[in-house]
Amino acid sequence: MTILTLTTDFGYKDHFVGALKGAIFSEIENATIVDISHSINPFNIQECAYILKNSYKTFPKGTVHIVGVDAELTKENEHIITYVDGHYFISANNGVVCLITSEIKPEKIVSINIPDTKDGSFPTYDVFIKAACHLARGGKMEVVGKPFTNLKTFKDFVPQLIDGGKTIIGNIVYIDNYGNVVSNIQKNLFEAYKNGRDYEVRVRGKVLKTIHNKYSDIINFDAEKNRRNGPGDLLALFNSSQFLELAIYKSNLTTVGGASTLLGLDYRDTITINFL
Amino acid sequence: MTILTLTTDFGYKDHFVGALKGAIFSEIENATIVDISHSINPFNIQECAYILKNSYKTFPKGTVHIVGVDAELTKENEHIITYVDGHYFISANNGVVCLITSEIKPEKIVSINIPDTKDGSFPTYDVFIKAACHLARGGKMEVVGKPFTNLKTFKDFVPQLIDGGKTIIGNIVYIDNYGNVVSNIQKNLFEAYKNGRDYEVRVRGKVLKTIHNKYSDIINFDAEKNRRNGPGDLLALFNSSQFLELAIYKSNLTTVGGASTLLGLDYRDTITINFL
Amino acid sequence: MTILTLTTDFGYKDHFVGALKGAIFSEIENATIVDISHSINPFNIQECAYILKNSYKTFPKGTVHIVGVDAELTKENEHIITYVDGHYFISANNGVVCLITSEIKPEKIVSINIPDTKDGSFPTYDVFIKAACHLARGGKMEVVGKPFTNLKTFKDFVPQLIDGGKTIIGNIVYIDNYGNVVSNIQKNLFEAYKNGRDYEVRVRGKVLKTIHNKYSDIINFDAEKNRRNGPGDLLALFNSSQFLELAIYKSNLTTVGGASTLLGLDYRDTITINFL
Repeated sequence: MTILTLTTDFGYKDHFVGALKGAIFSEIENATIVDISHSINPFNIQECAYILKNSYKTFPKGTVHIVGVDAELTKENEHIITYVDGHYFISANNGVVCLITSEIKPEKIVSINIPDTKDGSFPTYDVFIKAACHLARGGKMEVVGKPFTNLKTFKDFVPQLIDGGKTIIGNIVYIDNYGNVVSNIQKNLFEAYKNGRDYEVRVRGKVLKTIHNKYSDIINFDAEKNRRNGPGDLLALFNSSQFLELAIYKSNLTTVGGASTLLGLDYRDTITINFL
Repeated sequence: MTILTLTTDFGYKDHFVGALKGAIFSEIENATIVDISHSINPFNIQECAYILKNSYKTFPKGTVHIVGVDAELTKENEHIITYVDGHYFISANNGVVCLITSEIKPEKIVSINIPDTKDGSFPTYDVFIKAACHLARGGKMEVVGKPFTNLKTFKDFVPQLIDGGKTIIGNIVYIDNYGNVVSNIQKNLFEAYKNGRDYEVRVRGKVLKTIHNKYSDIINFDAEKNRRNGPGDLLALFNSSQFLELAIYKSNLTTVGGASTLLGLDYRDTITINFL
Repeated sequence: MTILTLTTDFGYKDHFVGALKGAIFSEIENATIVDISHSINPFNIQECAYILKNSYKTFPKGTVHIVGVDAELTKENEHIITYVDGHYFISANNGVVCLITSEIKPEKIVSINIPDTKDGSFPTYDVFIKAACHLARGGKMEVVGKPFTNLKTFKDFVPQLIDGGKTIIGNIVYIDNYGNVVSNIQKNLFEAYKNGRDYEVRVRGKVLKTIHNKYSDIINFDAEKNRRNGPGDLLALFNSSQFLELAIYKSNLTTVGGASTLLGLDYRDTITINFL
């Protein structure tokens, strides 16, 4: 059975998510629905794309991803289905798909034209669910839409290389549940320019000489416990999505704080790698 | 397979929801459980009813809705199952069912009397789950309860019509994830009294001359981008549930604010429509 | 079909939970996944254990519980599967299992050694999911791990008995969604030392003469409504997990407050029972 995922900015309190699921089960009795996130910042398609980009690939090919963020149909934002990387994304044409699968060319795109759908304020319910259930039942994209080529692009921040590759300047693109700050500098970019040189990571006056591969790598387990690094210490690592991340070991935003609050870092702030 | 939905004020952190689901799966191996909301304000049956009223109908007929809000058995609040509009609601007799399905007469009500159930502080677990699983397996209401007629009513706010139908005074009944404020003025009431007249919506000194049907209707797409309305502008619309709602276009309660915070509006505050 | 449960400190916004579920569905098409909680305070294994201890038993025997809290593999925290009380727990050897099932001796423990797994910063994804799916498909623990005996223990707070059993001093171990404070004093300990004596519960200068069995027991339904106890009144009860709890009747942390905020109580604070 095809899986349907939901990614929205509806939150977990209102009736919207429940209404969506009821409608899906009314169409497909034994549907498999997975919540990816309903806590996207309202209308923030970059954040939505970051979360989907880092999760959609773990689902089986053929999964249908419903993207309920900034989804109203307007003259400038058509309702579309994009088939890319073996997955279906149902969304408004607001740039989000391009941010999710930036490096992969979509195989097929249609603009949705299902007869008798309401053009209202809850298009995820009125339109996306219908298209999604059609696909989940094995239906073809062409039956619910017509060919579409005008996919909106959205210029995301990309790391800058300056001084002939001596310096990479990246930006913070996400802050996670621990207050860890994630940059747009990928490990393979770093490796491509490193050329065996030493390096330093600079952010807000802090200098880090090592980029780890896991959080606990900051701890020297050979040292006595009271002489080790530990909770409260800052580290850099390439995270599980292979992006450069700054973290406070065992941080907690509601008590001791995290990298974002302790270093005063926010979206778009810069992180620099200098090769020495 | 019958669907079981959960609507509670247990929140998403504590063990309560997990314990409920484990108990359901222990009774029904392949149960389908849908979370409608666990973020109801504690003991707030009006809020609970608002959320269920706007979501239960999208589920297939026969769905069993477990209502875990203010659910303790007392001399004054029996445990009941209400069959109404093709759906089962399992709740305490605290008025919530009457608020959910105010316009529809229940077809059948029983007070639950399952032998050997614990009369304790977690009745959703001790009693409601047992009754729900019985119904989900196709069992009859009469087997787990006895006929009941004393359904508690709860007087909800209703819009007032004054000046011989020249003015409708409504109240705010819900504030959603975007800070949009939802009133109890339904579109069909508005249409019934409009009689082709112009109108104005008044709230906190603001006057709105148009009630839209979707959020982006506030934007004049024919104008240049910098001359359009857009994020930050106030609009009125009949929302997807057909209630009059005030919204700030692309609002965000955690950053720029929403209609509730920017206009200082809270539950029960009034919204007025004057026909001119 | 075996159920897989998830208990993590990932929160409900980030991509982590979605990525886990996608990976599970990629291995087991018709998996049954239950979220117990993703709101554990980061790295707080006591809180994680409290929530699992109070929910795991409601699931069918054979359920596989994935514990994604403080899960990195280190020299001191192996990845283990513990089979205890008929349930599987997949976790790091950080003491959490001992806190969940403190009174029950594990039947079998293995340290996970699945070839070609990544030793990175997202072990719940890289390792635990693989082990969990193996067990869910009916596989044996021994195939994914080798015998292990070094289960880490974690000394939790236990109630103190002083004055020859005249006084029990307990600690607050959890604060729930309502602000109710839960102590580590179990009903059976209280009963064992009561010996027919009267008693008083003392906390922050308040004295309570009765321990109830449900919240509404504080209300005298025979009295007129305006002469009853009700919302805002403090009570003690043995809660649904049989621990002594202090609650404000119909409390709400976001409006009127709860026992934790109104009495200024936090984790580890003491609650005393004196037998008279």
